[in-house]
This record gives sequence, structure tokens and C-alpha cells, in this order.
Amino acid sequence: MNIAEESLKKHFQWRGKLETVPRAAVTDTQSLSLAYTPGVAQACLEIQKKPELSFDLTRRWNTVAVVTDGTAVLGLGDIGPEAGMPVMEGKSVLFKTFGNVDAIPLCIKSKSSEEIIRCVELLSGSFGGINLEDISAPRCFEIERELKKRLDIPVFHDDQHGTAIVVGAALENALKLVGKKMGDVRAVINGAGSAGIAIAEFLLGLGIGDVAVCDRKGVLDAKTAGNDAKAEIASKTNKACVKGLLKDAMRGADVFIGVSAPNVVDEEMVRSMAKKPIVFTMSNPVPEILPEKALAAGAAVVGTGSSQYKNQINNVLAFPGIFRGALDARAHDITMDMMKAACKAIASAVDEKDLSSEYIIPYAFDKNVHALVAAAVKKAAEAEK
Amino acid sequence: MNIAEESLKKHFQWRGKLETVPRAAVTDTQSLSLAYTPGVAQACLEIQKKPELSFDLTRRWNTVAVVTDGTAVLGLGDIGPEAGMPVMEGKSVLFKTFGNVDAIPLCIKSKSSEEIIRCVELLSGSFGGINLEDISAPRCFEIERELKKRLDIPVFHDDQHGTAIVVGAALENALKLVGKKMGDVRAVINGAGSAGIAIAEFLLGLGIGDVAVCDRKGVLDAKTAGNDAKAEIASKTNKACVKGLLKDAMRGADVFIGVSAPNVVDEEMVRSMAKKPIVFTMSNPVPEILPEKALAAGAAVVGTGSSQYKNQINNVLAFPGIFRGALDARAHDITMDMMKAACKAIASAVDEKDLSSEYIIPYAFDKNVHALVAAAVKKAAEAEK
Repeated sequence: MNIAEESLKKHFQWRGKLETVPRAAVTDTQSLSLAYTPGVAQACLEIQKKPELSFDLTRRWNTVAVVTDGTAVLGLGDIGPEAGMPVMEGKSVLFKTFGNVDAIPLCIKSKSSEEIIRCVELLSGSFGGINLEDISAPRCFEIERELKKRLDIPVFHDDQHGTAIVVGAALENALKLVGKKMGDVRAVINGAGSAGIAIAEFLLGLGIGDVAVCDRKGVLDAKTAGNDAKAEIASKTNKACVKGLLKDAMRGADVFIGVSAPNVVDEEMVRSMAKKPIVFTMSNPVPEILPEKALAAGAAVVGTGSSQYKNQINNVLAFPGIFRGALDARAHDITMDMMKAACKAIASAVDEKDLSSEYIIPYAFDKNVHALVAAAVKKAAEAEK
Repeated sequence: MNIAEESLKKHFQWRGKLETVPRAAVTDTQSLSLAYTPGVAQACLEIQKKPELSFDLTRRWNTVAVVTDGTAVLGLGDIGPEAGMPVMEGKSVLFKTFGNVDAIPLCIKSKSSEEIIRCVELLSGSFGGINLEDISAPRCFEIERELKKRLDIPVFHDDQHGTAIVVGAALENALKLVGKKMGDVRAVINGAGSAGIAIAEFLLGLGIGDVAVCDRKGVLDAKTAGNDAKAEIASKTNKACVKGLLKDAMRGADVFIGVSAPNVVDEEMVRSMAKKPIVFTMSNPVPEILPEKALAAGAAVVGTGSSQYKNQINNVLAFPGIFRGALDARAHDITMDMMKAACKAIASAVDEKDLSSEYIIPYAFDKNVHALVAAAVKKAAEAEK
């Protein structure tokens, strides 16, 4: 049985990967009157007087909504909110397993940004944070930006920033291996969707020397870019003023980061890069170039998006600890400084002595990494208060 | 320490009365790839092909949203969505404890009926049912009616129908005791909010001889009623054409049902009722008339809304089993027949041989009642398919 068949069989057995379990036992009239009426009225009144107490008297302090509209689920595209739910449940399992965060998956039946924004805003008093998930670009940018403005709880689009943070951590460690500095390298990102644009933004935040973003038509140009988000990132990137197709951009580049499509990079393109090139070929399940080919063409370090290969650049390294830290700090936002702190924490989870071209990033099941990320994010959030 | 203080202390300890727990363990790369990517994609694709499978491949089959806007929380009134959360969490605990239903409390930050309706509609694909809670009248009527129209999953406003069903069950058994028939009695309901109007509707459904509904101004009159819901129920009730105040309506009545305010009924009013009067004095925490006073004035059977007295008419007898049955039948609605079935099941949980003026309704912790209700509701739902 292959993984798809086995997973489907398991899904029919699980009938949902999450369960809601009481923390308060109701076993008799006395316990009923404490957890529910009439006793519960007192907790209500305290929150009414001081809304901040909703973080102490309800589960809000530990609760994150995992919100999607089902428009960009995995590599499956726009499959609708109901069909997106198995992924959101899975994500929620990871939130609990790695961050002890109670995540509630919510799939919204609308593609209107304004409706999605308003719906999340209306529900925000029930949660301590909002994790946006699998919403297609460029709508995801507008939805996240507007929610960050309207809400006083952290809002985080994992497909953008979770990916960017883990790529950043992998790149920090890969650069140590090849003996280059972040400020000296030029990277090329292929894919100008939510992940690609967020990676570019984040690498700029980490002080990368230069970065160019390509879509199917080649290097983004602020004047001809297909949407505002592409135009904006084009205006901030590509100091080298590279023009042309992906292969033109890759010539002489130190780093390639693929969040695009299968088989769009060949060995010749890797050979055209600078010395000791770093190649993150993250398209899933089929990468931009197979790791073995990239290595054969001279790549010094290769990262992928799949657990089948070494150096899996996996979002699960970031989001559970990020929300754990943000919730623990009662942060009102997730800022660039908090994201940088998460990135450094992930990178630091690989001991210098263990660092090798086959081990630049911790395993998802590394017992320490999530606690390290949470502590670093909490500290960064508190420093900003 | 009184109950309010003790409950508040407990709430600070609980920090939320619900927890989200994984049903799928993720402990290694293999289990991660089954519960999450890449395996999960298969479950998504199956639901995309056949949306009904969302009830088999996700937790939807067992999941109900407990939705409020915080406008009519307990007797506390409009305390807002955050302050309503402790009640919604408590309710969710009861859903799980008595019905094994996974309930998700959602507090909506809007008082606009249209916004609340749309928000719930947008989220409905994530749930198997919607329990509306503590939404003020008359908005609750419009919200429920519209959601029942738009959604293909059961929608139930517990403050209305849960209360009505349990009152109906208590009345069935009380009538047996006093040797009267439903079709022969006249009832007076004081309180024309969500509960009062729903009780009147439901008693009509049970075939009551006559029922009159009063608000603060006295017996409702279709021409002068304060809102459409009152006007509508006025037009369907009061065959006897009683006019005047509550005390006028109660003269000669067989049944009094109070869902109104403390101390609005005196002994003289009970004495003016028909022989062997039944008095349900359900205002909470202070009833319309104290049970001991009602008994002293000649009431044959007294029910209340409080666990401090005998015959507590408690919604918890109804809603867990109702949703359990509706979910098990994959019902698209909760119909009058399903509600009647729940009512009969609750009444039947009191053995004829145990029936007495102090025991007309099962205890909340009766082990059988919830399963009886669930089975009866499921059967009724299946009969309607």
C-alpha cells in the first residue's frame, strides 16, 4: 500500500484527527454549578469588567484559529473549504504535538478577501492568535495585512513566513559550511507566490547581499509584474539588475531557492552558479531539480521540501514554537524581530560540530528545537513591549 | 467560600475548560506523512470529489459550533462576546460529557443579525451542526430562521427549543400526576423572550388545549405586541381570549410557566388557578415564586430552574442527546418531530412507578436519559428522510 492509500485508510479510521476534551470535569451537581451555571457567571462578569482576563479565565491564552479558504491547499490548488479540512486538522495536530497549542481549524466558504477578513475579525475575541493557511496569492497578502491592522492578537500566514523563517535558518547554516557571509551573497528565488515573496522579504531582513525573484516569465520587473505584491517585491530586490529568464538570473548566483514547479532547473543551470552553490529545491512532491542531480552538478549544499531527502526545509520547525512564544508573551503581533529570533533559534539547534552538508537544519522531531524557538520568540516579543 | 468565588477560583486554575487533543499521533516521519503531508492530500482529493465525505474523513461528523454574540448571557444580559466565553466553554463541556459531541465555542463580535448569519454560514462547512446560544430576542428568531434556510446542517437555538423540550417533558409527566390531559389544559407563560415564545410554540405542537403568553404589559395581543415574534405567537395562542395582566391570565389556568423575573407571582395568583395547578417557576437564580410558597398556595407540582430545588427543568437533559442523535442520523435539520421525540424520551426516563410531585423530570446526571434522547432523535430524523 502506498502512502496515499495508507493515509486515506487511516483517515477513515480516525474520523477526524482532533478531539475536544474537557479540562473541567462535570460529574455531579456541585461540579456542574462550578463549571456552568450559576457559578460561571462570576468569570463572565470579571471578563466584562476587564476584557484582558479572557486570557486567564478561558482557553484563549492557548488557542489559535487555523484559517483557510481552501484556495491553495498543498499543491492541490483551489479545492474548497471542506476538502481543505484534512490539512487544517493535520496542522492543528502539529500545533498541539510540538507547541502544546490548542488549534481550531476553520474553513471559510468564501473567496472574497473582505468577507474572509471580516469573518476572522468577528471571531477574533475567541482566540489568542490567527494562523492563516493555504490561501492563494495575492489575496493572502491583503488578508494578512488587513488582519494585522485590525486585530490585537498575532496574525501569521504560515505559507509565507513559516517557510521564510525555515529557509532563513537553513541558509544561515549552509553559509557557515561554504564559508560565505549573508551580506555577500546573491540569491535567486524561483516562484513569486506567497512563499517566494515572503522568503525574499525575510532574506532582506536578514541582510542578504542581493536577491532576485523570478516567476514563470523570468526575473520580476516592477513595471511589468502581474500584481501589486510582485511589483512591490521587485522594487525592493535585484540590486544587480539581472534581466531575463531564471537561467539568466542563476548565472553566478550563490543561492538558488525553488518554491515553484517540478523540473524547472537543470544541471547546466546549477553549473552556471558561483562557486560552492547552495540549492534549496523545495517544490513538492517533485522538486525543481532532483537533489542527486544538483549535487552531481556541483551544489555544495542541497535542501528540499521532502522528508525523503536530507535537509528537509519543513515549516513544522517554526510555527508551533512561534505561536507558543507569542502566546506566552501575550504578544499583539508577530514582528520581523520575532521571526528573526525564531530563525536564529532553529539554526542554533544544529550544533556547529554536527553541521555538515547533509545536516544544516534540525529534524522535525528534534526534541529541543520547538522549545528553543518558543523561548526566543517570547524573549523577542517581550523586548518589544 | 460561596459558589461564585469558588467557581472564579476554579476558572483561574482551569485556564479554559476545553482542550484540543489529537486523535492521530505524530511521533515520527512515517506518522507525520500519514496525518499530514504528503499522505493527507488523498483525503482532500476524496472530499473534493464527494463533499459528503467530509463527514467521514474529518471530525465534522461529531463537531458542533456553539455560537453566541454575547447579548443575552445567562441572566447577565449583553456582556459581549469575550465575557460570554466561559458559558460557551461550559456548554461545550456538557456537550462532550453527556453527548460525546466535540463542541467548539465561537463568540462573534457583532450585533448585526446579517453579519452573524453570514459569519456562521461561511464557517458551516467546518461543522456538523450549529448550536446558537444566548443571543437576545427578537434577533435570535431571525438568525435561527435564516440559518435553517441557508444551511444543510442542523441549527438549534438551545435557549428556545432546548428549554421548550424540557418544559414539555416535565409537563407531560406532571399532567399524568394530576390526572389531566394535554388537550384539556390551559397554560399561561410569563416571559415573551426566546424561551417563552418557543415554549408556547412547542406546547402547541404537543397539542395543548390553550396557552397564553404574557410579557411585562400582560397578555400578548397581536395588534399591540412589541415585535413581530410576539405578534406572531399572539396570533396563534390564547384561544380563550383572555385579556389583562398576568394575574388575570392565571385565573383558572391549569399550568403556569415562568421564564421571566423574580417574585412576579404571589400566593394569591396560584390560589386563583384551576384545581391541582402545575407551577414551573424557572426564573434564575430567584424564581417567579419560591417553590415552598407555591406549594403552600396549593400547587400540585412545582418545577424550577435551579438545582437547589426538586424538579429542576434543565436544558442539559435535551441538547447533548439531540445533537448526538441529529449527528448520528446526519440530519440536515432539527424538526418539530425530532424535538417531540426528544421530549417523549426525556419524560420516559422517569419510570411511572417512581413518578411523584417531587420527581417529574430526570436528574441531569441520570445515566440513561442522554442515550434515550439520542436514540429517539436519530430514529425521528431517519423517519423523515
